[in-house]
Amino acid sequence: MSTAFPAPPRIAIIGAGALGCYYGAKLLKSGADVHFLARSGRAALTARGLQVKSTTESIRIRKIHVYGSPTEIGPCDLVIIATKATANEAVKNLLPPLLGPDTIVLTLQNGLGVEERLAEVAGAGRVYGAICYIGCMRTGPGVVKCSFPGLMTIGKFGHSAVNRTNAIASLWRHAGVKCTAQENLEMQRWHKLVWNVPFNGLAIVGGITTDVLLADEGLKLLARRLMEEVVDAAAKFGHEIPRSFIDLQFERTAKMGPYRPSSLIDFEEGRDVEIEEIWGEPVRRAKAIGAPVPRMEMLYFLIKQRLAARKTAKAKR
Amino acid sequence: MSTAFPAPPRIAIIGAGALGCYYGAKLLKSGADVHFLARSGRAALTARGLQVKSTTESIRIRKIHVYGSPTEIGPCDLVIIATKATANEAVKNLLPPLLGPDTIVLTLQNGLGVEERLAEVAGAGRVYGAICYIGCMRTGPGVVKCSFPGLMTIGKFGHSAVNRTNAIASLWRHAGVKCTAQENLEMQRWHKLVWNVPFNGLAIVGGITTDVLLADEGLKLLARRLMEEVVDAAAKFGHEIPRSFIDLQFERTAKMGPYRPSSLIDFEEGRDVEIEEIWGEPVRRAKAIGAPVPRMEMLYFLIKQRLAARKTAKAKR
Repeated sequence: MSTAFPAPPRIAIIGAGALGCYYGAKLLKSGADVHFLARSGRAALTARGLQVKSTTESIRIRKIHVYGSPTEIGPCDLVIIATKATANEAVKNLLPPLLGPDTIVLTLQNGLGVEERLAEVAGAGRVYGAICYIGCMRTGPGVVKCSFPGLMTIGKFGHSAVNRTNAIASLWRHAGVKCTAQENLEMQRWHKLVWNVPFNGLAIVGGITTDVLLADEGLKLLARRLMEEVVDAAAKFGHEIPRSFIDLQFERTAKMGPYRPSSLIDFEEGRDVEIEEIWGEPVRRAKAIGAPVPRMEMLYFLIKQRLAARKTAKAKR
Repeated sequence: MSTAFPAPPRIAIIGAGALGCYYGAKLLKSGADVHFLARSGRAALTARGLQVKSTTESIRIRKIHVYGSPTEIGPCDLVIIATKATANEAVKNLLPPLLGPDTIVLTLQNGLGVEERLAEVAGAGRVYGAICYIGCMRTGPGVVKCSFPGLMTIGKFGHSAVNRTNAIASLWRHAGVKCTAQENLEMQRWHKLVWNVPFNGLAIVGGITTDVLLADEGLKLLARRLMEEVVDAAAKFGHEIPRSFIDLQFERTAKMGPYRPSSLIDFEEGRDVEIEEIWGEPVRRAKAIGAPVPRMEMLYFLIKQRLAARKTAKAKR
């Protein structure tokens, strides 16, 4: 099944951070009817709109619709979750007013276990996940710099009779986003973890950008070992990721220069870090199925301590 | 064989840091003829002598012999190496003038591979190692605070016909230092690593004292896993360390309060850290014999990066 969205599709985007603004701008430019739900910075967003600069284009949208409550938006064709996964308990409360009988919920979040949270309120049948290979950063309300506008892969969550994955992928491609539909969402999530686990994790623990990591022989080897743990754990779940995928990660990352992984930005700017989704849940699932993940678990513990220390330091100030 | 030292024994101590001053004061108090070889702070040491405060006693030695060159000291009965193991390349050059035909060389250093360096110049037959379970800190030239005056265990290096381990142990006991002679020095070194690897290592990576580590559930579990790796690696070398030794480490450490492991002090004060002796060499030996040490290796890489970052930061200043 591939029921297309009405034209123009009515879309709600929860979260006006880097991802929400970037993808929102792309959708608006393609003619979609986009409504942002933002926790903060609404006045600035309403007054100034969106400014997106990527390596390939500049998008300026002067007038956007921004709301503080989902009831002001009402039911949509598509609800895009563009907050951190750490906000999903709050997101669960925001969803119901946005859902009509055929509404699709698409999360752009990282890690494992994110669709599960959303399915609890939206129902599993309409929840989809997008794995975004993108490097972008919010530098002010509605202002986003995108250093790496990469591929998005879309998949449906769980075993649902309905499958509108292709319709969602078409919508993105129409908006100029490279997007593929994939059968196996879970497998795609594990693919993304191959990069996120070592690079986001070691960035936080070492306080370093990707170029520093790659220049350090020990950390580079460690990143490879961590990737192997992710690949081996994924294989236990039936997701065969070729070893060449690991080499590919290093090649791609080398081209990214002094890149600050999103978790490092979150950590350094005092924001929530998706620790459970990127490290905690994968470690727990891997251990439950008998996949050895000593380094990944160690990384999880070290990041956790780092977050606790940040909290203590903040409380003292 | 247990040939006693002449009374009073002529002793050279290389290094006037916390350990050199503490043990030097104990030996001087017992009547030994002690000569310090110090790289820096000689004027202050000569003028002010030693002040040692431990939990059980206060020692004040007003007049000590301090030298800048080993030729000023000449051959001794016992040469005690009380520098960091990182200084052993320099120590090798300092040794020859201090050695007579029967001179014993005793290193108080941590980790694996330290006797090997000294044996290269002194000859394996006269090299001994001491494992010092002690918590002490230098607060100024010749001024030492000792929070935990624990056991010292002495053993001979390698397979040597001569064995004066008991004579050395007697000397220490005469000086009021709890000291036992042990057959198997290598095994004792692995014993000490059970504590040093996790506590010194995680202290550097986390920037934390032992109490903070023990209060963090994840790090505490990680410390245990690291200890298990040390114990399992030691077993591969034929050194059976009982699992109960691990619990004992936690019990002892809990009593130590907010303790700063020596490597953390070294790290934070910009001094050399014994990274190869405590982590690098044990990791290499464990891997060579087929013992899996993923966490220990990860810790090694993380500390190495931390040291590189400190160096870069220093160069920028």
